[in-house]
Amino acid sequence: MDNFKPKFTDVNTLGEFGLIEKLTKDTIKYNTSTIKGIGDDAAVVNYGDAYLVMSTDLLIEGIHFDLMYMPLKHLGYKAVIVNLSDIYAMNAVPTQITFSIAISSKFSVEALEELYMGIHEACRMYNVDLIGGDTTSSTKGLSISVTAMGQVKKEKITYRSGAKVGDILCVTGDLGAAYLGLQILEREKQLYVSNPGIKPDLEDQKYLLERQLKPEARKDSIMYFAKQGIIPTAMIDVSDGLASDLMHICKASDVGAYIEEAKIPIKDEAQLMAIKFRLDPATTALNGGEDYELLFTIDESDLEKIKHMPDVYIIGEITDRKDGLKLHTSGGNIHKLKAQGWNHFDDETTGQN
Amino acid sequence: MDNFKPKFTDVNTLGEFGLIEKLTKDTIKYNTSTIKGIGDDAAVVNYGDAYLVMSTDLLIEGIHFDLMYMPLKHLGYKAVIVNLSDIYAMNAVPTQITFSIAISSKFSVEALEELYMGIHEACRMYNVDLIGGDTTSSTKGLSISVTAMGQVKKEKITYRSGAKVGDILCVTGDLGAAYLGLQILEREKQLYVSNPGIKPDLEDQKYLLERQLKPEARKDSIMYFAKQGIIPTAMIDVSDGLASDLMHICKASDVGAYIEEAKIPIKDEAQLMAIKFRLDPATTALNGGEDYELLFTIDESDLEKIKHMPDVYIIGEITDRKDGLKLHTSGGNIHKLKAQGWNHFDDETTGQN
Repeated sequence: MDNFKPKFTDVNTLGEFGLIEKLTKDTIKYNTSTIKGIGDDAAVVNYGDAYLVMSTDLLIEGIHFDLMYMPLKHLGYKAVIVNLSDIYAMNAVPTQITFSIAISSKFSVEALEELYMGIHEACRMYNVDLIGGDTTSSTKGLSISVTAMGQVKKEKITYRSGAKVGDILCVTGDLGAAYLGLQILEREKQLYVSNPGIKPDLEDQKYLLERQLKPEARKDSIMYFAKQGIIPTAMIDVSDGLASDLMHICKASDVGAYIEEAKIPIKDEAQLMAIKFRLDPATTALNGGEDYELLFTIDESDLEKIKHMPDVYIIGEITDRKDGLKLHTSGGNIHKLKAQGWNHFDDETTGQN
Repeated sequence: MDNFKPKFTDVNTLGEFGLIEKLTKDTIKYNTSTIKGIGDDAAVVNYGDAYLVMSTDLLIEGIHFDLMYMPLKHLGYKAVIVNLSDIYAMNAVPTQITFSIAISSKFSVEALEELYMGIHEACRMYNVDLIGGDTTSSTKGLSISVTAMGQVKKEKITYRSGAKVGDILCVTGDLGAAYLGLQILEREKQLYVSNPGIKPDLEDQKYLLERQLKPEARKDSIMYFAKQGIIPTAMIDVSDGLASDLMHICKASDVGAYIEEAKIPIKDEAQLMAIKFRLDPATTALNGGEDYELLFTIDESDLEKIKHMPDVYIIGEITDRKDGLKLHTSGGNIHKLKAQGWNHFDDETTGQN
């Protein structure tokens, strides 16, 4: 009866993207309404005048979040935000979400009310409707599944695949802070575990912690694009890290790119904290992840418009595929860009992260 | 730092529906495109000429399925089917799904390929596109999240809430078999656990096992409605059990109902097996669940059309609210109808089951 065969191929040998490719290679399209399936920040479905975009995430306690330092209210908020970020990355406006939870017996009604406070708060901030979900029990901890939907005019949809040689590479906000916030929380957790009497003093690291615990999605950037008539040629949200997410754009667009290290936006707080952790600030920005900023490319002709866009930085340029991905260091060297990304083999190519 | 407060209110004290009501009572609608949120088989969103319906399920190993007797291929198939069933219950046609998995290290690539074979097979049988999902690791076992989308012409959308006094109560297929199939599998599992040398002989229980392991959704019924111009006044899929699901219709429609016990469709195999398990066949049909049949009400004027519908049974009638829910037994008695439903407090009112 037992259907556990002897373990053949370890999933880790394929890597996150190889596994997805293998599992979904037989996917057939039966409906003409399916415009884009697996392979971008969100799937795209044709609905009359507009496109519907849809993204989904599965978050597991102990893998994606640690309730030792993640307040449930923030967890609810963040779980919504990371999905809205994928919708914005398609140049779309999110409209509805579903939120499902599986809970073990350790969660009280009051704890769940905290979680839902965060969900409702995110819905309020981003004008998104909670329209459903599933609620069930789990054998261990908390599992969360969020699906977000949004709308975009057909001519404004932005895929990862539209970047072309000569396009300008831009990123919003700043990078690396969320990763450093996580490092602080992990360090404090270790201290707390070894000495529960210690009261952590996290006040002066407010910015870094907030970037980790209560990220925001770039609604403002999408609104700016709409107002200024800008349609990025390609876009992705920075969830894996700048390097990895740029690779997704380059692979999907069949181009190369370079980043100027000196142009990568890193906050002073992040610079200082990286050094404190003996990390290279640029590396945390390139590989940290969870920034939920938008990485996008624009046609040269939009350069003037972008120059006036608040909180956006020109960090490089799209090049020919044969030139690969390069980092022009502050010291004047040129390095090949490597991506490390997250290690819980979270899929970033199934269209739904 | 630890945010586990002392456990206040046990979620079980509220019950499944009470918990959902408490958690989602503050839900605000920001978008005019949201037609129906929490509270039916699927949520409904306005998209131009048509309605988009959307349903989601979260399935946890050890709660919703047991890999001791559930082959992964069937699990993939069933996980899709249960969501399509919710889409059909809105009188809609499913078009796209997303399928997310969280897996522990015990799962090989080959095991996951089995799972996806089932997913692809369900997509092929029901003409549905797999457009995305999330793939990540878990700390324990397998978690699955499926979201299904479908379309329906606005005038044909069918909610739980439209039943009115005098409407005829119908159900498709037959009931109780899936529950009995589960009982057989559980019994064989116990035998196997105590004596792994035993080879279970399940051949003569093929129908009951198939109803549990490889259910189908009633695409044919929805197609028949479309062809004959029937629009049910209310509809729900039978996932909790006939009694519980009828209660959902009655509560949403603010009506009462009666069921004639003798009219409940139960297959001979199910009758015999129920007796073998010392269960009342009618009780397994009323409370077993997982049948994925359609329970619906029609206006009296559609009676002639329904009489010619294949595999459908008239089992009762909608009555005034004050009459409550009644079972007219084969022996001529009238009992109050009670619902037991599933015990893993799976939510059936968040619109997404």
